[in-house]
Amino acid sequence: MQNNLFQIETETNWEDLGDGIKRQIYGYNDTVMMVKVKFEAGAVGTLHQHHHSQVTYVETGVFETTIDDQTKTLKKGDGFYAPPHKIHGVVCKEPGVLIDVFTPHREDFLKTNS
Amino acid sequence: MQNNLFQIETETNWEDLGDGIKRQIYGYNDTVMMVKVKFEAGAVGTLHQHHHSQVTYVETGVFETTIDDQTKTLKKGDGFYAPPHKIHGVVCKEPGVLIDVFTPHREDFLKTNS
Repeated sequence: MQNNLFQIETETNWEDLGDGIKRQIYGYNDTVMMVKVKFEAGAVGTLHQHHHSQVTYVETGVFETTIDDQTKTLKKGDGFYAPPHKIHGVVCKEPGVLIDVFTPHREDFLKTNS
Repeated sequence: MQNNLFQIETETNWEDLGDGIKRQIYGYNDTVMMVKVKFEAGAVGTLHQHHHSQVTYVETGVFETTIDDQTKTLKKGDGFYAPPHKIHGVVCKEPGVLIDVFTPHREDFLKTNS
């Protein structure tokens, strides 16, 4: 299982998740998946946890980010690391985009995207 | 082995790789690593291959990107997927930043960064 070698933003489907959040699926195979997530101001990535390791880059915007028992305001150019099974979530303070990468890949995202 | 939970751009070391390329190490553990790579115009990410799976996001700039036998010009907002052991490289056409993510993590990058 793998995506195309190239992902062109204007040719990639936006999946509307509701509540001011949309996403595009970028590169992936069985072991890794990159996902671009667009947030309107006030949108909330609810606190949750999963077995995947997650690394995230703040492409634009400002996000109040909680991981485990720590909360920090991250802005364009910053990033975070959410270890497996650690509770994490974001509140979008200024509209923007997060680049989320998971290992292994998010099988559940492919199911909802088809 | 893992990085801090939060990576703040202004507090993160830039490693100068020479020839117009610098990088910052973002989130990682044993299974994944996010790396931010800044290119001056004309800088070349030489064709190479590795056993890691790689997904990349074009944060800014324009990059002529080759993977295997395909070449495409990618710009801000696009991305690519380099499968394990597939030759890939970039030529920076307009200055910018790539967000590279590898699985497993790049042990070699940590050695040169210390």
